Amino acid sequence: MYSNGDVFVGEIIGTAILILFGAGVCAAVTLHHSKAKAAGWVVIAFGWGFGVLAGAYTAGPLSGGHLNPAVTLGIAIESGEWDQVHLYVLGQMIGAILGAVLCWLTYYAQFQANAEEEKAQPTLGIFATGPEVRDPVANVVTEVIATIGLVLPILAFGMNEGLGTSGTGTLVVAFLVVGIGLSLGGPTGYAINPARDLGPRIAHALLPIPNKGGSDWSYAWVPVVGPLIGGALAGLIFNAAF
Amino acid sequence: MYSNGDVFVGEIIGTAILILFGAGVCAAVTLHHSKAKAAGWVVIAFGWGFGVLAGAYTAGPLSGGHLNPAVTLGIAIESGEWDQVHLYVLGQMIGAILGAVLCWLTYYAQFQANAEEEKAQPTLGIFATGPEVRDPVANVVTEVIATIGLVLPILAFGMNEGLGTSGTGTLVVAFLVVGIGLSLGGPTGYAINPARDLGPRIAHALLPIPNKGGSDWSYAWVPVVGPLIGGALAGLIFNAAF
Amino acid sequence: MYSNGDVFVGEIIGTAILILFGAGVCAAVTLHHSKAKAAGWVVIAFGWGFGVLAGAYTAGPLSGGHLNPAVTLGIAIESGEWDQVHLYVLGQMIGAILGAVLCWLTYYAQFQANAEEEKAQPTLGIFATGPEVRDPVANVVTEVIATIGLVLPILAFGMNEGLGTSGTGTLVVAFLVVGIGLSLGGPTGYAINPARDLGPRIAHALLPIPNKGGSDWSYAWVPVVGPLIGGALAGLIFNAAF
Amino acid sequence: MYSNGDVFVGEIIGTAILILFGAGVCAAVTLHHSKAKAAGWVVIAFGWGFGVLAGAYTAGPLSGGHLNPAVTLGIAIESGEWDQVHLYVLGQMIGAILGAVLCWLTYYAQFQANAEEEKAQPTLGIFATGPEVRDPVANVVTEVIATIGLVLPILAFGMNEGLGTSGTGTLVVAFLVVGIGLSLGGPTGYAINPARDLGPRIAHALLPIPNKGGSDWSYAWVPVVGPLIGGALAGLIFNAAF
Repeated sequence: MYSNGDVFVGEIIGTAILILFGAGVCAAVTLHHSKAKAAGWVVIAFGWGFGVLAGAYTAGPLSGGHLNPAVTLGIAIESGEWDQVHLYVLGQMIGAILGAVLCWLTYYAQFQANAEEEKAQPTLGIFATGPEVRDPVANVVTEVIATIGLVLPILAFGMNEGLGTSGTGTLVVAFLVVGIGLSLGGPTGYAINPARDLGPRIAHALLPIPNKGGSDWSYAWVPVVGPLIGGALAGLIFNAAF
Repeated sequence: MYSNGDVFVGEIIGTAILILFGAGVCAAVTLHHSKAKAAGWVVIAFGWGFGVLAGAYTAGPLSGGHLNPAVTLGIAIESGEWDQVHLYVLGQMIGAILGAVLCWLTYYAQFQANAEEEKAQPTLGIFATGPEVRDPVANVVTEVIATIGLVLPILAFGMNEGLGTSGTGTLVVAFLVVGIGLSLGGPTGYAINPARDLGPRIAHALLPIPNKGGSDWSYAWVPVVGPLIGGALAGLIFNAAF
Repeated sequence: MYSNGDVFVGEIIGTAILILFGAGVCAAVTLHHSKAKAAGWVVIAFGWGFGVLAGAYTAGPLSGGHLNPAVTLGIAIESGEWDQVHLYVLGQMIGAILGAVLCWLTYYAQFQANAEEEKAQPTLGIFATGPEVRDPVANVVTEVIATIGLVLPILAFGMNEGLGTSGTGTLVVAFLVVGIGLSLGGPTGYAINPARDLGPRIAHALLPIPNKGGSDWSYAWVPVVGPLIGGALAGLIFNAAF
Repeated sequence: MYSNGDVFVGEIIGTAILILFGAGVCAAVTLHHSKAKAAGWVVIAFGWGFGVLAGAYTAGPLSGGHLNPAVTLGIAIESGEWDQVHLYVLGQMIGAILGAVLCWLTYYAQFQANAEEEKAQPTLGIFATGPEVRDPVANVVTEVIATIGLVLPILAFGMNEGLGTSGTGTLVVAFLVVGIGLSLGGPTGYAINPARDLGPRIAHALLPIPNKGGSDWSYAWVPVVGPLIGGALAGLIFNAAF
């Protein structure tokens, strides 16, 4: 077991790195005056995947590197250990907000310049997800399935013993996240993580970004509820099948 | 040896994940109202490869994660063990159909919206393969060679001992599948797996997708026969050379 | 030591797979009626890299998987062992020709259809390399440096002990080859391997491909001589520095 | 501890390889008459990442493969060992200049031909970084955060024990660098390494490249100061949190 302090600090640092990279790649392909402008979906998917790699390997020694309440929920259901769940989730939320602020600082000049462009890019998509077709039931289903596609493999990876001793399990998870982005991200932008969506959405609402547009709170429940259902279902499927 | 129940359940779950990701990436780049629309061949190839990663690592502890009758056939020829072949293949077919249904649910709103577009995209290519030049002999030859390019390396990987103990063998197979897609997928869309093609083709025929077009049953034997010949040849070549 | 028979067979099979994938990806992005037509340089580089992955892991248990006379030369200079060099090189040449034939069979319908297009694509670039600026001295220098960039790291990888026991050394070499393609392939198309260029060029000259164009024999010495000099220099640098 | 001679030689060779690949990929996508012209940001990011892979695995057995004064600084703060810092940094600077010269030789014919084009490409971007929006404070902040995103994970990776014994730690660092490029490279081109920027900038100023344009010395301090602050902060954060 990791100590309470390590869990809390680890999840803050790890989730902050994840969101710095993930929101960062969205800023990179979205904003004017970015070298990666319009670089395409493959860049988005690998950027988020390697954000998981960076954040989870960094948090690994402290907290195991969940970085995602849906993962924490799936592991709690699988293991029956619920004592530290609140510490994980609190750390993840703080880290997600912190990471969004770091992304804003990294792209500060781009956010300022974007606001002055004739065709200023909307900025919410850098921080939070949104659906291509707004249909809450379909959107929740998409997030549920995509999150099962994340959490069920993660739980099963733990039974491939070599992955743990060789330290390559997190690398495999990173590529898994790339794959989810490529394959399942089309409809809703694959939140698959309540903290990843809600934390940066809060940051977007609070940060003094000029010409930033709304934070679309009417959709905000979808990428929270869908991933939590998906993480829970993954834990239940795992316990039934493995 | 894996138990019969584990083999059956593992292959269902693993193949369902493979097809969810693989058909998913085809939906992502094909359908209107997808964030990855027209994202290109590199996205297709990595999407399928990481689908193998997700499915095979998940099924690994239960069944070894074949997910492909051609792989099961090649391993049976190599090992001389035929007792569980029918369980593997049955699980793979059920899993492939299940995965196609999950893909449809994930992209449900996109399938609905696509049907209403003036230029609705044909949907069969999301589920099953088709040739660029329709020439059954040439198409079978392509699938035979591409499947040898899959199964012969997989059999040989087993002799690189470190890959097993470090848990990285499946990661290498995932990149192998990416490579087959990039290099050998041009003519026929690289079925290289009878279940991967036939299962989703059946799902396509049965699912209530509006404006879906035909299921091209006249071609359906090619991606079954070609990969089976390729898997068998790979087993024979392996036994002769190694 | 590997047995003479294993070396010969392993290098034939491994190099055939390498060229099947490598020439295959060039066919995939070049020929009309290919699903990967014009898919871009990133596809070329990953296709060749994963061709190394497929071929070298397959040949690994038999011959160590050199697949390249420049690698064989560098290892011979480093180790002082020259007894099997001729077997390695002969196997590599046979395998390279065989792989080119397999690529032609895989894309047979595309080669036929290409010849009937109004703007038929030249086919030599699928098999062999050519320079963007024809300047023999500069082209040789490019190939020498790029081959040092291949062989010197490969020799040094052997001193990172974990790479051997975890079986991930070949995976790292595959990504190294992707990197060489991305970074150093611009001027000459990175032969970095005499067999990779000369074998398929011979196949191109002999195969009954309609409307195929010439085989550019005046350039053929560059991708043989450059890589051999590079491999030798890498061996000498390694012996001096490590 | 590595011997002084090994540190010096290892950092020269490793950093030269890093810059050969990194400047190489910038040349590949920038210059006329390159097969990878305009191949996009994903090529840049993977090219630099696999340059780290090539250089760090090669230097690993001699010096541990820092290749970056910001990494050396972060490790010195973490470990309290400052004895060899000057050797690391001196080797890195020499290696970076050497690598830039090797890149110029590799693309010699392209540099010559570029100068004669009507729309000759500016060449400084091949060697050194520059900001999209010139704002020194914002640019320094970007480099500080991006370098923390490099050095803090590298320090934490050392606590994931399996990464060391399996030899895959450097592979993970390579993907981390790909991720930094994709996610954090938009504003300034991610120097994240004083030697990577200053060494090639010196080479650019000295090399006889025709029509090369200026070396932008007014910006040169940013990619030195920013990464050094970031590396130091990463060391301090690591000591506080781990």
